[in-house]
Amino acid sequence: MDHRYMALALSLGRRGQGNTWPNPAVGCVIVNAGRIVGRGWTQPSGRPHAEVVALEQAGNRARGATAYVTLEPCAHYGKTPPCAEALINAGVARVVAAITDSDPRVSGQGFAMLRDAGIEVTTGVLADEAARDLAGFFARVEQGRPALTLKLANSFDGRIATATGESQWITGPEARRHVHAMRASHDAVMVGGGTARADDPSLTVRDMGVTRQPVRVVLSRRLDLPLTGKLASTAHEVPVWICHGPDLDPVLERSWRDLGAELIRCPLSQGQIDPLAALEALGERGLTRVFCEGGGALAASLLARDLVDDLVGYTAGLAIGAEGLPGIGAMGLDRLGAAPRYELVEARQIGKDVLHHWRRR
Amino acid sequence: MDHRYMALALSLGRRGQGNTWPNPAVGCVIVNAGRIVGRGWTQPSGRPHAEVVALEQAGNRARGATAYVTLEPCAHYGKTPPCAEALINAGVARVVAAITDSDPRVSGQGFAMLRDAGIEVTTGVLADEAARDLAGFFARVEQGRPALTLKLANSFDGRIATATGESQWITGPEARRHVHAMRASHDAVMVGGGTARADDPSLTVRDMGVTRQPVRVVLSRRLDLPLTGKLASTAHEVPVWICHGPDLDPVLERSWRDLGAELIRCPLSQGQIDPLAALEALGERGLTRVFCEGGGALAASLLARDLVDDLVGYTAGLAIGAEGLPGIGAMGLDRLGAAPRYELVEARQIGKDVLHHWRRR
Repeated sequence: MDHRYMALALSLGRRGQGNTWPNPAVGCVIVNAGRIVGRGWTQPSGRPHAEVVALEQAGNRARGATAYVTLEPCAHYGKTPPCAEALINAGVARVVAAITDSDPRVSGQGFAMLRDAGIEVTTGVLADEAARDLAGFFARVEQGRPALTLKLANSFDGRIATATGESQWITGPEARRHVHAMRASHDAVMVGGGTARADDPSLTVRDMGVTRQPVRVVLSRRLDLPLTGKLASTAHEVPVWICHGPDLDPVLERSWRDLGAELIRCPLSQGQIDPLAALEALGERGLTRVFCEGGGALAASLLARDLVDDLVGYTAGLAIGAEGLPGIGAMGLDRLGAAPRYELVEARQIGKDVLHHWRRR
Repeated sequence: MDHRYMALALSLGRRGQGNTWPNPAVGCVIVNAGRIVGRGWTQPSGRPHAEVVALEQAGNRARGATAYVTLEPCAHYGKTPPCAEALINAGVARVVAAITDSDPRVSGQGFAMLRDAGIEVTTGVLADEAARDLAGFFARVEQGRPALTLKLANSFDGRIATATGESQWITGPEARRHVHAMRASHDAVMVGGGTARADDPSLTVRDMGVTRQPVRVVLSRRLDLPLTGKLASTAHEVPVWICHGPDLDPVLERSWRDLGAELIRCPLSQGQIDPLAALEALGERGLTRVFCEGGGALAASLLARDLVDDLVGYTAGLAIGAEGLPGIGAMGLDRLGAAPRYELVEARQIGKDVLHHWRRR
């Protein structure tokens, strides 16, 4: 039964994705004598933690119960007392965890604290699935950068717009709705400056009932983005972070600051914003899951640097031809063996289109 | 039960696809008092017809039985007596047909002959499915051209090779095996001259136990194909038909004739072989189902002229970038609304790749 309860805890944990950064989106289920007495997941902004929510729901029924948590309970005193302590105080008899936290303030210490209190601890249940769900949290703790999902909505022949830039609509409403759900489950939505200029996107989550909008991130070396576009006019309401290069026009800089944007200075590589440096800057600011929606040049530089963790494609049944805009720009590959390869996670019909999701091997 | 028996007859009919041209690949099931007493499908080269095979298997048990046939039984005296007559002589009580034959020698007359003999006739059972299965036969009879399936084996970003032409292997062995099954179910495999030069393909069906190889068709305006390649060296064993333009180098022409190729003169349009004229020439020679495997220029001209009935994509989880070879060349589209649109038939994992099949709306 451990696997079943853990699968439930994982699905609860996923509800928090996009809302808990910089904290991990954890799920917790408390089971007493075969009955589920508490469920919880990390709440928006990361507090309270999943365990605390589930324990509160369980009340006295937590005594002697088993707690299923998707990540090792925290052991350090931060804004709140550690979850390991909360589990001990609640009288839980056994804790089943999917995976060990790699945060050095926790790693192994959460389990040790529980064991020292006489609680039976089982680890490694559905660890691979937890590692995938919490990939953004781990990427930030271990590599200093968020996990990155790259999205492409293209024609049968891999084009994202006609030669004249017409792209509305290649895919149908169901695929576009799925994109909004993907945005909602990420901490931030990211595009290149060219896309921000060409499409004037708002990059917000619409019609999904979200309470916390993802941060909008734009990579723009010179900050030459339209000051009257949708991003500019809404930067006071939903965060806009702009990763820019070292040299800026001071007027543009002041204008964007006045509009409410956060400006993040990044080093260049090959004349463009270094994509790894940009991601590290986002990681420093707490982002764990970033959803990149192009354009082609940014997509190519992320792929070429092997910074893409998940690829999500929406393919429509139409052909645009070679004059159309490619979804992925020039990558400088010399041979097929050097092309980054991804493993298929899912392929299915979505509306009239095909959804295909791939993960780095 | 009519639908169930007809579905069986359709699946039997599909066994003949690719082997029966210029005849349709028909299926037949004979049912007597709830028992299947005969099954048949059109045999290689188109004779004997499905009904005759099934009646032979049924023997005396055909008397008073119901015959399910996927196409109206033929009524004209060709190489053999008409199937309608065979059904009458066998004493069949009822005939259920999926669809009316549009061949003017048959259309409606098969049913009339049966009814005149006192046989009960039901038509239109699973007619849409039969129309799809027999699309090539109908396209040839009604429009004078075969049905065309266009295949693309590409990367996540729609590329079929690197900039240097490396294409082995983008997709995996399961997808490649599926391509061989697709070749086997078509009358001919077709490529452009550029692909024939660049890849030196054999275009045969391998490891599928086929008895009849599809015709290999190459579109080459000037017949400038390698005289020492795989197509040249095997043209005496498996047919090679070359659609060429009006002006030919007489040496090349004689060489290819000596190698055993059939040369088909076609008019040009915009400096290239007119794709519709080429398909009509193939239809005249009896082809009903053609499987086009590229390259990009031929694919684009077929799509732009709305000559593609089915699109079959095999998408691999790798990114090649914009320098890579596009699977579909320049189409000259000016706006998205003018792009040919296709309806999804199937999307699923095949090996490590995604198979997606689309049909013209």
